[in-house]
Amino acid sequence: MIEVEVKAIAKEFESIRKRLAELNALKIKTERQEDTYFNAPHRDFAITDEALRIRKIPENDNLKVFITYKGAKIDKSSKTRKEFEVGVADAELTKNIFESLGFKEVATVVKDREIYQLEEFIITLDTVKKAGIFVEIEKDLEDGSDFDETLQEIFKLYEKLGITEGFERRSYLELTGI
Amino acid sequence: MIEVEVKAIAKEFESIRKRLAELNALKIKTERQEDTYFNAPHRDFAITDEALRIRKIPENDNLKVFITYKGAKIDKSSKTRKEFEVGVADAELTKNIFESLGFKEVATVVKDREIYQLEEFIITLDTVKKAGIFVEIEKDLEDGSDFDETLQEIFKLYEKLGITEGFERRSYLELTGI
Repeated sequence: MIEVEVKAIAKEFESIRKRLAELNALKIKTERQEDTYFNAPHRDFAITDEALRIRKIPENDNLKVFITYKGAKIDKSSKTRKEFEVGVADAELTKNIFESLGFKEVATVVKDREIYQLEEFIITLDTVKKAGIFVEIEKDLEDGSDFDETLQEIFKLYEKLGITEGFERRSYLELTGI
Repeated sequence: MIEVEVKAIAKEFESIRKRLAELNALKIKTERQEDTYFNAPHRDFAITDEALRIRKIPENDNLKVFITYKGAKIDKSSKTRKEFEVGVADAELTKNIFESLGFKEVATVVKDREIYQLEEFIITLDTVKKAGIFVEIEKDLEDGSDFDETLQEIFKLYEKLGITEGFERRSYLELTGI
């Protein structure tokens, strides 16, 4: 799967929420995401531009846990990249497996995310600890798809939300400056 | 967790099932296990004696999937080693993640396993494709435990089952000769 994604620094969320409502975007949910990133023993993900993380989402008395791998970004203006994500039953055991294989924990990024859907786009309003507030717009495509058109649609959608600058290719991991 | 485990080649299962019944061992279940093994990009698991696998257990219309990591064997007479296992939601996505990280699929071992419990021991009767039939006895201990005593208990239990030879330290992956 290819994740076509553009991130922008936000000044505030109120006007964006208002525009989302005017566009009839559907508010899906809000959630806290705690992402623990790992580096590989055989290549430096800071150089190869890959990411491996364990995401924890506390939900009432439950904890949802996912492994996510992201490949290097494949274009110059966005965060478009290959992504695989799978649910796992336990974060600690998964971490034990990664560490036994030689992967090293790098840092944990914590954010509160408001998630909206508009047609096939997912729009998130992210409040990221130690980094600030951001908007991300994402659409998932099949492998091998042409993502240029999708990218243009995403930038048009940003315009409709009143955002025409502040686009940011760096990850939250990079932006938290750890 | 430390997995204290001894494997033995079996000639037949009938007499062993009879002894298990006499010992009041509890038959827990039978299941098919399809284990796909991977090798690492940065060290050769055939040399380091580690294992990383995705286990699939078909169960009615469901498929249970696990990631398992096994460390190097830590004694000379058994298969005792560190083990971490975690349930995952999807085998194919997990394989995509492993392969993206540079792990290579080595082989798949398929077996039918009858699982019994006797006190804290798990006894399995395994019919392994391309390898033969085997008995495994296992007990899980906390990290740092002394496993010598457990090992002696396991060999005593083998004696009660009528098995005093044919002990085998090689994995099913090695025994299938792939």
